Amino acid sequence: MSELAGKTIAVLGGTGPQGRGLARRFAQAGLSVVIGGRGAEKAEATAAELVEATGGKVTGAANPDAAAAADVVLVVVPWDGHKELLESLKDVLAGKIVVDCVNPLGFDKQGPFALKVEEGSATEQAAAILTESTVVGAFHNVSAALLEDPELSSIDTDVFVLGDERDATDLVQELAASIPGVRGVWGGRRRNAHQVEALTANLIAMNRRYKTHAGVKATGV
Amino acid sequence: MSELAGKTIAVLGGTGPQGRGLARRFAQAGLSVVIGGRGAEKAEATAAELVEATGGKVTGAANPDAAAAADVVLVVVPWDGHKELLESLKDVLAGKIVVDCVNPLGFDKQGPFALKVEEGSATEQAAAILTESTVVGAFHNVSAALLEDPELSSIDTDVFVLGDERDATDLVQELAASIPGVRGVWGGRRRNAHQVEALTANLIAMNRRYKTHAGVKATGV
Repeated sequence: MSELAGKTIAVLGGTGPQGRGLARRFAQAGLSVVIGGRGAEKAEATAAELVEATGGKVTGAANPDAAAAADVVLVVVPWDGHKELLESLKDVLAGKIVVDCVNPLGFDKQGPFALKVEEGSATEQAAAILTESTVVGAFHNVSAALLEDPELSSIDTDVFVLGDERDATDLVQELAASIPGVRGVWGGRRRNAHQVEALTANLIAMNRRYKTHAGVKATGV
Repeated sequence: MSELAGKTIAVLGGTGPQGRGLARRFAQAGLSVVIGGRGAEKAEATAAELVEATGGKVTGAANPDAAAAADVVLVVVPWDGHKELLESLKDVLAGKIVVDCVNPLGFDKQGPFALKVEEGSATEQAAAILTESTVVGAFHNVSAALLEDPELSSIDTDVFVLGDERDATDLVQELAASIPGVRGVWGGRRRNAHQVEALTANLIAMNRRYKTHAGVKATGV
């Protein structure tokens, strides 16, 4: 864990299941984690729960303070509000690696579907706003239920890491691999992030059909 | 192979690497295959090669005749020409199961990328044209190089089958599973086909980075 050593990871939206699950796994891996939330209080409460559950280094703060405290900032907020949050944090995120984990999805009677995004994807929207940050897309397809399952010591899945800057994508691959069982695999440039985000709709549909928590792996890699 | 037994499979565009590779595997599985091509002559030549290679039941014909001869018709043509071909075959494909395998991709100096499709995806375009057929999307992410490799007896990959009609998607899952090593997994409705088609751009990018022929598998299914 050479490049990751000593780095602090913020998880904006870390009070929701997906962010909380990722924070739990990073804390278990010995990383310093800051949970970001809309309010400091709920973030601090989530952090306290994760300290108790993992014995790791987890603190909580309001999203802007969490972002300021970290080297690598994961964005795990609902799609509704993604743009506004990133616009409000543009300055504090300058110079940092920002990992967008957001899936723009809709749901109706026929189940999940991918939303159209003007910029192409959540990751590209983040890159368009955060022109002073290095934006990577990752952690789109990992089940929150598996991340949060305290009985599950290892998760059999790949994390596709999308980005154009090799140092940053290498670091995020290493971050993914800090979770036992998980591989971080470079999955293409940011302009190919949409389909990885949208694939989560397929996985949710498969979850319903097969009564499971589906993930994806690349074969041959 | 209960539902598949006795069925004839046409592979339109079966003279190209992807279609030829699928036809080879279906022939090896003992299925009756008709290679479709723009001209009968090249399709017949490809069929003769596959008979020699596999000892299977493979014939060749021009695309409309191949479509007419089959119960299940795979469309494995270049995206450029997809719409026109299907419009020209609308009547002959009526009442049949049509499996769209086409990936609308572009390539530039930065590698592969997904093209925008007015109907959402190649599969949805096919369904919009072929209103009297049952349209399923599948076989998007299987490497032609692996399909065509005579040394490779088994291919470690899943085929995501996209469709709204259970009988048809079940049959196509069975068709996928006729290739040793391959699982056919229902991957969602047609409206979620785009991201599975587009994911091929990511796999091609990964092939270049990792010097491999990448595929995908669902975990937890």
